[in-house]
Amino acid sequence: MAVVALAVLLKPDSSGEQILSYTAPVKDMRFVLDHVVGMEDIARLPGYEEATPDIVSAILEEAGKFAADVLAPLNHPGDLEGATWTAEGVTTVAGWKDAYTQFSEAGWNSLAFDPEYGGQGMPGALAAAVQEMWHSSNMAFGLCPLLTQGAVHAIASHASDELKQTYLEKMISGQWTGTMNLTEPQAGSDLAAVRSRAEPRGDHYLITGQKIYITYGDHDMTENTIHLVLARTPDAPAGVKGISLFVCPKYLLNSDGTPGQRNDARCVSIEHKLGIHASPTCVMSFGDDGGAVGYLVGEENRGLMYMFTMMNEARLAVGIEGYALGEMAYQRATAFAKDRKQGPVLLGDKESQPGIINHPDVRRMLMTMRSQVEAARVIAYDCAAAFDFASHHSDEDVRARFDRRGALLTPIVKGWSTEIGVDVCSLGVQVHGGMGFIEETGAAQYLRDVRITPIYEGTTGIQANDLLGRKTQYDGGQGIEELLVDMRATLSALEQATDAHGKRAGKALKNAIDLVAAASQKILQQENPAVNAAVANDYLMLMGYTTGCWALARSVLATANVDDNDFVSAKLTVCRFYFDCIAPRANSHFTALENADIEHYALDIELM
Amino acid sequence: MAVVALAVLLKPDSSGEQILSYTAPVKDMRFVLDHVVGMEDIARLPGYEEATPDIVSAILEEAGKFAADVLAPLNHPGDLEGATWTAEGVTTVAGWKDAYTQFSEAGWNSLAFDPEYGGQGMPGALAAAVQEMWHSSNMAFGLCPLLTQGAVHAIASHASDELKQTYLEKMISGQWTGTMNLTEPQAGSDLAAVRSRAEPRGDHYLITGQKIYITYGDHDMTENTIHLVLARTPDAPAGVKGISLFVCPKYLLNSDGTPGQRNDARCVSIEHKLGIHASPTCVMSFGDDGGAVGYLVGEENRGLMYMFTMMNEARLAVGIEGYALGEMAYQRATAFAKDRKQGPVLLGDKESQPGIINHPDVRRMLMTMRSQVEAARVIAYDCAAAFDFASHHSDEDVRARFDRRGALLTPIVKGWSTEIGVDVCSLGVQVHGGMGFIEETGAAQYLRDVRITPIYEGTTGIQANDLLGRKTQYDGGQGIEELLVDMRATLSALEQATDAHGKRAGKALKNAIDLVAAASQKILQQENPAVNAAVANDYLMLMGYTTGCWALARSVLATANVDDNDFVSAKLTVCRFYFDCIAPRANSHFTALENADIEHYALDIELM
Repeated sequence: MAVVALAVLLKPDSSGEQILSYTAPVKDMRFVLDHVVGMEDIARLPGYEEATPDIVSAILEEAGKFAADVLAPLNHPGDLEGATWTAEGVTTVAGWKDAYTQFSEAGWNSLAFDPEYGGQGMPGALAAAVQEMWHSSNMAFGLCPLLTQGAVHAIASHASDELKQTYLEKMISGQWTGTMNLTEPQAGSDLAAVRSRAEPRGDHYLITGQKIYITYGDHDMTENTIHLVLARTPDAPAGVKGISLFVCPKYLLNSDGTPGQRNDARCVSIEHKLGIHASPTCVMSFGDDGGAVGYLVGEENRGLMYMFTMMNEARLAVGIEGYALGEMAYQRATAFAKDRKQGPVLLGDKESQPGIINHPDVRRMLMTMRSQVEAARVIAYDCAAAFDFASHHSDEDVRARFDRRGALLTPIVKGWSTEIGVDVCSLGVQVHGGMGFIEETGAAQYLRDVRITPIYEGTTGIQANDLLGRKTQYDGGQGIEELLVDMRATLSALEQATDAHGKRAGKALKNAIDLVAAASQKILQQENPAVNAAVANDYLMLMGYTTGCWALARSVLATANVDDNDFVSAKLTVCRFYFDCIAPRANSHFTALENADIEHYALDIELM
Repeated sequence: MAVVALAVLLKPDSSGEQILSYTAPVKDMRFVLDHVVGMEDIARLPGYEEATPDIVSAILEEAGKFAADVLAPLNHPGDLEGATWTAEGVTTVAGWKDAYTQFSEAGWNSLAFDPEYGGQGMPGALAAAVQEMWHSSNMAFGLCPLLTQGAVHAIASHASDELKQTYLEKMISGQWTGTMNLTEPQAGSDLAAVRSRAEPRGDHYLITGQKIYITYGDHDMTENTIHLVLARTPDAPAGVKGISLFVCPKYLLNSDGTPGQRNDARCVSIEHKLGIHASPTCVMSFGDDGGAVGYLVGEENRGLMYMFTMMNEARLAVGIEGYALGEMAYQRATAFAKDRKQGPVLLGDKESQPGIINHPDVRRMLMTMRSQVEAARVIAYDCAAAFDFASHHSDEDVRARFDRRGALLTPIVKGWSTEIGVDVCSLGVQVHGGMGFIEETGAAQYLRDVRITPIYEGTTGIQANDLLGRKTQYDGGQGIEELLVDMRATLSALEQATDAHGKRAGKALKNAIDLVAAASQKILQQENPAVNAAVANDYLMLMGYTTGCWALARSVLATANVDDNDFVSAKLTVCRFYFDCIAPRANSHFTALENADIEHYALDIELM
């Protein structure tokens, strides 16, 4: 039976039960943070002084333990059991509430938030690494704090002091969670179509309407849940300029700030989904009994703009999910491939290492998985670091430049890292052969879970249009030009290299730079918006593979600062594989982009 | 709720219930068979005279109706309900048994089998088209006749006349089904490790052992199931040269040929799988009560060779599954995209056609899906046609040449069409946005179902090694050279073309030919088998995209023989998209193949 060969994947947990294990890649995280992204520079920024090497190290180690010991053991059971709904509300999976309590009590929820409201004020780059661990070990769990984070930022950035005083501290501690209520059945990617209503009633509004796809819209882990809701006031203009944002708690607060009366906002069903079964995806109904009490965030009609300020962060987080699941899939596939024996192998010590990992094609799959994950990790931390500089640097011009960089990288992290995340998890299934298709193995769950990441928080198509439009065309290519300057600086450094690894990295980076320059030029010169919209995906994927190339080219240079020979040897081999076998994918996207023609899309829809 | 927008996907069936519909692409099937693959020539082969245009047309129309009316309505319910197991055996999904009875009574099971045992003797190329319909509409159902087909061929090709007389007629009619018992927990891709035993007992053997992943290993649809089982006789040599093949019926036959006493072969559990839930994947136990009675097929120790003779056909069938699911995903995504409205569109008549199908990026996804499916269809029918010529042509040299062609195309159909099938079904989810992740929409099921196709009947890695090794290296490149001759003939014809479509096809085909020639040359010259094993996947994918290019280049030429302007216009647009946007993918595989280096795989496994 298939179960026989599962033994290798299972390790006993503290109670002796067998679990599918996760090991946080702390070494690589440290390498990227310290030597590629520049944690030292971040720790010099005003406000980030506490992010000393010792603290960073301790946080990563502890987070890794929490992910491995508390979250990973719940991942597969969570998938099997799933969240459940009754008219009373959503019940989370057994163990979930306890894990969440541990999570917030240990302070993980508050890691990167503003110290003014009880946050620990750690840099976003470090928080990105920690977040990666939550998603690798248990994405369905990690979604809950991810959504709270979005709600916190919406309130912190745009709400009145009173709302901040009332809600932030408990949301930052994790005592209460947050949700984002955007989507309606007719308003998904197009939020202009939002119909939910908000009627003013003195100091508050009464909200009515139905929202779908609300992650952790209801659950039983905390005593309150704070919904952020997009709705229209009675006289609001049509379209995106008439949408306002409201805070709408599940329980209205008593005068002492404790949860009191139930608000008129309920979860009326949860979705039956391909993956993330333990994360309840709720249909929320507001105002079935006359109206849910909501409090306006900022000014009326500016809700969509407020949402966008936190969108970058949410998109970065989802991008991290994409490759974090890829990391998990890689760990599982590697463990399997070391143990599983089928036929004579061609690599390694054939006698003592007969596992299928020494079949060249299996090794190719694993290297394809790992090299893309390691590239995506650099880009994600880079993006988070850019926002750290953008928010904390003392010089305004520097802040502006890093803000452009973060904004430019965000759709790449969200779009590319999730697309390759799906591919990587699919390869993880493939490495397992027939056992990959059996749910007990766990590989299939990663594929099912990761499949949502190119969809929510803006589909890949939305990211591609954001990258090509807002981030490239509308700033006249300034962000891209700055990126090219930095890529060329890396190339200059590599051109000094005398070793084969440096030369190879330089050659690959040179090609990447040429592609970025030529593709961006083509985009900027294109006059037909339909053609640009059609090639946006190829542009996004090209930008992903080329910034990935840059990320690993910098990694090659950074190995000079590392003593650990095994780590360096592995890193250089992974980079080399990427340059030789993965980076060329950018070229086929460039050719497709060059060949783009409106005639490709000329068929009448009746013929489609 | 998500359910609102589902209405567009649902059509009422005869009882008024709403179902997810399928429409057989009969027009394109006819086009490929008649004008690209050469059905007329096949019908001239001795034995295929009855495959007249009228008959072919009638069969395709009727099969299309059966798939749409009987099989498609069961597909989604079958996924939800799944096959169930008790100690008594497997119970199939409600409606399954009735559908199977209709299927065999209508003669669909016997379509392409030998008339000597009640088959209809229709060409394989036609059967391929019909099989595509079963898999598009209901892959979990289609697997049952697919496995019977494999068992029939094993018996028909290698068993004694007595076994043929005893079993073939009822298996060909579909009154009994067949199974293939190869895999054991330690013996998946490597059948040399098979341990099941067969002890001789006069006219039969007693079989003991456990087999896993046995598709329809048990079910309640027919009165008997005939297992084909690989096992070792007591004195058999180790490895692949000591494996024999046995016929082992679920019920032993009475002297009048009717099923009698229960044989000692039982399904002891079924797997919990990612997809194809309605297809029971059985763990089979032989000989728990002393030994299952089995009858030797052919001679002892030649079992693996016998399995390989039918492997080509099974692999072709699985390749068809890959793109057939892609076809279904395309139909579903297109219907959704026509109806779903989100934001202002840039293509088509913006007022009367506001569906997201007129967003360029959505159209790009749909064209990416369709163009690859249409290319894969040609290659699959081409492969089936090659075996028709190989089995029925009067000239031995012609037979040998077509046998090489079929053998060469088989791993491409199995490997490439299933890999792109996964991508296409994943795009089908993406087109749906958030609704794609909701199981009710149906898109997710196609992705879950198709994911097994690059795994079973030999993983993509196995196909790649077969293509590169047995089909290219070991025949010294003869099969590839013959393919190149045919590709160049198409190129010559296109070089006469004066229209833009012909010129564009010629340019793309020229590039494809250069890549096939250069990549094959590199393979043939490579002296390190580990490097060849490492690049085998890139070679396979390159061969897929390039033969796909050839397939559509011939399609461009073939449109000259078609009157239907709408069809021709759509076909030319689809081909153009493939040449411009899909075919370039072959180039990145070529670059990866060129860059291949054993150093990529040099890491000690402890560092992986």
